[in-house]
Amino acid sequence: MYPLDRDPLLLTPGPLTTSLRTKQAMLHDWGSWDAAFNRITGELCEQIVGIVNAAQTHVCVPLQGSGTFSVEAALGTLVPRQGKVLVPNNGAYCARILKILSYLGREAVELAIPEDRPADPAAIEAALTADPSITHVAQVHCETGTGILNPLPEIAAAVARQGRGLIVDAMSSFGAIDIDAQRMPFDALIAASGKCLEGVPGMGFVIARREALEASAGNAHSLAMDLHDQWAYMQKTTQWRFTPPTHVVVALYEALAQHREEGGVAVRHARYAANCAALVSGMQALGLRPFLDAGVQAPVIVTFHAPAHPAYDFRTFYDGVRARGFILYPGKLTQVETFRIGCIGALTPADIEKVVDAAGATLRDMGIPAGMR
Amino acid sequence: MYPLDRDPLLLTPGPLTTSLRTKQAMLHDWGSWDAAFNRITGELCEQIVGIVNAAQTHVCVPLQGSGTFSVEAALGTLVPRQGKVLVPNNGAYCARILKILSYLGREAVELAIPEDRPADPAAIEAALTADPSITHVAQVHCETGTGILNPLPEIAAAVARQGRGLIVDAMSSFGAIDIDAQRMPFDALIAASGKCLEGVPGMGFVIARREALEASAGNAHSLAMDLHDQWAYMQKTTQWRFTPPTHVVVALYEALAQHREEGGVAVRHARYAANCAALVSGMQALGLRPFLDAGVQAPVIVTFHAPAHPAYDFRTFYDGVRARGFILYPGKLTQVETFRIGCIGALTPADIEKVVDAAGATLRDMGIPAGMR
Repeated sequence: MYPLDRDPLLLTPGPLTTSLRTKQAMLHDWGSWDAAFNRITGELCEQIVGIVNAAQTHVCVPLQGSGTFSVEAALGTLVPRQGKVLVPNNGAYCARILKILSYLGREAVELAIPEDRPADPAAIEAALTADPSITHVAQVHCETGTGILNPLPEIAAAVARQGRGLIVDAMSSFGAIDIDAQRMPFDALIAASGKCLEGVPGMGFVIARREALEASAGNAHSLAMDLHDQWAYMQKTTQWRFTPPTHVVVALYEALAQHREEGGVAVRHARYAANCAALVSGMQALGLRPFLDAGVQAPVIVTFHAPAHPAYDFRTFYDGVRARGFILYPGKLTQVETFRIGCIGALTPADIEKVVDAAGATLRDMGIPAGMR
Repeated sequence: MYPLDRDPLLLTPGPLTTSLRTKQAMLHDWGSWDAAFNRITGELCEQIVGIVNAAQTHVCVPLQGSGTFSVEAALGTLVPRQGKVLVPNNGAYCARILKILSYLGREAVELAIPEDRPADPAAIEAALTADPSITHVAQVHCETGTGILNPLPEIAAAVARQGRGLIVDAMSSFGAIDIDAQRMPFDALIAASGKCLEGVPGMGFVIARREALEASAGNAHSLAMDLHDQWAYMQKTTQWRFTPPTHVVVALYEALAQHREEGGVAVRHARYAANCAALVSGMQALGLRPFLDAGVQAPVIVTFHAPAHPAYDFRTFYDGVRARGFILYPGKLTQVETFRIGCIGALTPADIEKVVDAAGATLRDMGIPAGMR
């Protein structure tokens, strides 16, 4: 092994590797009451709403904390206390939504789905038809637990046909996978600074349908998580209600500029898809198998089966790849031993090839021959 | 006016002006699963607990979001659903605690105090004696609404004598005003990254008495705000439950190193006290009066009466001082027109003298003569 002459690259679904330009935006301090900072917040919200073609119908409400904080805020604010939420569940982040609803005392109905299968719009529509008391569907777009892409356009259409509200956790898809609020109606769509927009972690945001948000006053279970209060205060003052993570905000603003300069969602998607293709083909050449079928794999994070060889253990593999300059991610499946490698962040296929080389060299060092993975 | 050749200095109670060294710590990306990052979290928690001599009795639980998020998390986790909280109220942040308790459905008793008077330990003890059903006292240490210092040692002693739990919002005092968990017993004490520790905003932390925290499972109203769950997960994994604000964390770690190198709480207190003295005497020389008596003024943020002159308005004053390179803060009192100037952050009395000069020059430009302020 050799000491690294640079920071390791993060092959993780956020925090991820960001550009130096994004990080350098944090070399300044900003006053949270000052107009210069609040203009940045305002423009950032406009740009975020623009990315999903929602300016006519929706508003962006930023929130301090991790992405999960924004998911909870959206559920707690937009689902009334007597609401009932259908949760198609094919992974860890769907399960987290169920956990949040349980904390909030909002009734939930789980629609269980195998982790390697996408949510089925027809099954969702059937569940809604069967139970008219369901008020909302909470759908994870790209389930980061496996990396599977759920079919948002068809699900949104089904929910709209049944006249229910749709709340989308788009944490790891926003900015890299096409979403259009007019073609895929939703009441709320949630993402965060440190994912495919390639900012640093520390804030989330909810793109909320204005009418749904206006009707939500008094729903929230928590002051910190009250998205309506956050929005109303921001409308009145242009400021965040409580101290914003100023450096994270300006880093996201700078990251959004780079997202536009790169060519927006389509071009970012193409880069991530190229990363994903390089990763899957490279790892397959090493004898490693992806967990998902290619047809349902989002170009965000790829789950691989762990080698069955007795010499394999994740910690040794992780440490070997890290010593070569790359940080992987553990698997998040309960039944199958896996590990995950992200395709997102300020990375190109050339970086991914080096990751594959590092994985191959580490497996060789571990005494796991190519034919036995 | 002249264009600034540097960032304006923040004379605000957080976000505040941080050192370049602290900001430069954010020029690296960190994996939230990686041991190198989690060692930083662990050391940071140990150091924070050490600052208030609490290592034997308390643990530090960091939390994503602004300081208010941590205040809500402490209240929601440590006060049982049937608890009842006494809130001595002499300012905006005391009022915020009452608002949080109302959201959480926890019973609250307000002890109203004029905004220019500190909380009275005897009155608190009398209220506890009169109502044995009160389980907790929630006390703001330095009330940033005015800058007043509440007498924590005497209040802690009174609450301990009555056998109730004390929850302290030490947001703007932690790290600059002496606090000792053994001499001033508390169940929880809350602060944040972007205040007197001179980190950047984006995370808070709760120093919780271990036994109280252990007994709090199941209390919380919110997954995001569940401090017990955050702590239990961190104990098990060394990791944060949800994506941490990695850059904010490493900036705080670097800020803590500078806090130690400067000489810890006593020396930081001395610098802020010197800032405060320079500010008050300089502004008095300009004819401006502080709102609080010197004896109850914390060296954190000073509230000044606005000049009574008809040519004064805060916006013009703010803009004039800002154009000269300094960002002030509006007043937060409802009855009296005021403005506030902070004494905290990476600032020295030499900076404060320039702030005073800028205020004086701005008032002259506004046509407000020294005798008429």
